[in-house]
Amino acid sequence: MKEHIAILTFDGFNELDSLIAYGMLSRISLLGDTDWRVSIASPTPRVTSMNGLTIDTHIDLHEANSADAVLIGSGMKTREVGNDASIMGQIKLDSQKQLIVSQCSGTFLMAKLGLIGKTPACTDTTSKPWVQAAGVNVLNQAFYANGNIATAGGCLSAQYVSAWLILRLRGLEQATEALRYFAPVGEKDEYVNRALTHIGGARV
Amino acid sequence: MKEHIAILTFDGFNELDSLIAYGMLSRISLLGDTDWRVSIASPTPRVTSMNGLTIDTHIDLHEANSADAVLIGSGMKTREVGNDASIMGQIKLDSQKQLIVSQCSGTFLMAKLGLIGKTPACTDTTSKPWVQAAGVNVLNQAFYANGNIATAGGCLSAQYVSAWLILRLRGLEQATEALRYFAPVGEKDEYVNRALTHIGGARV
Repeated sequence: MKEHIAILTFDGFNELDSLIAYGMLSRISLLGDTDWRVSIASPTPRVTSMNGLTIDTHIDLHEANSADAVLIGSGMKTREVGNDASIMGQIKLDSQKQLIVSQCSGTFLMAKLGLIGKTPACTDTTSKPWVQAAGVNVLNQAFYANGNIATAGGCLSAQYVSAWLILRLRGLEQATEALRYFAPVGEKDEYVNRALTHIGGARV
Repeated sequence: MKEHIAILTFDGFNELDSLIAYGMLSRISLLGDTDWRVSIASPTPRVTSMNGLTIDTHIDLHEANSADAVLIGSGMKTREVGNDASIMGQIKLDSQKQLIVSQCSGTFLMAKLGLIGKTPACTDTTSKPWVQAAGVNVLNQAFYANGNIATAGGCLSAQYVSAWLILRLRGLEQATEALRYFAPVGEKDEYVNRALTHIGGARV
């Protein structure tokens, strides 16, 4: 079985929210697992970040719809994306079959897609007022998972999102290895344990 | 005065090591400061990461040489870069006039450029043996600064590198604001205080 994780990345995207996860999740394939694939998914073949970094994207939104896990990134234009029927109409996710995660303002898109309902969710402090205005019960914490849905708030929470996806798709050992690899030298136990507390893994 | 920070980014680069800093450092210009500029610098107009992410770069190595601060990123091909005279010959940095920082295996390039000498330095755990073999006294910690030179080990130490550069170029208030903005929700004081301890700022 080939596992595919798509990271939805839109014009004006936040570099940390899409690309920390891209790097951390890619650890699995980098270690030689050819059944693991991570893709940047976008409506366009190239996309430019909120700070002017232009990247080539890997797949379109249609292909992302069939991924095993989908991470909805964040950015400066999330509200415009959420109100653009030509983009939103292309996104068809199913939390019965897929893991679906949002980072920061991506929680707004998750709500617009009807994936949150009354479940509490996380977002960043800047987006919080308008994510609340969209009807979301926003938690004052970095990460929250419920079933196949998870949300995170604050760019560096991307480490928790990535670890949760690896935990759910590959188990605790690989999630722990990735966390340990990316953590600062001299602080690895501290980073691993805090992340495992968030994602529900046993502390090491 | 326009301040310019160049992030040296080579073929096979580590996404977290170049792009966490790119996003965090860009916080200053995003908040409206037009005297602040952050650039991805590379020998080529486009560069592909260790996990297959292709980005457009902003400037060449020659232009990076005149930046106020230079961050040397990390990647899978650092040893090849360090042994490529056509690349290394283009890099001419001066720690009397510039802040110079390296992340993970970038410390190897800093040593090859003659910028470290006997000063202790940080790198990641994977690179440590061959960075030591290059004559560097490697510390078992996330961040170390000495004068205008700083080094960091472990991808998520990019937050310390970024905060140190902002501290040195713009002061404590802006460094603290950036750290707080990017930290996970509910953990902001913890992240800010740990980073400030690393970079020598007062805890908040």
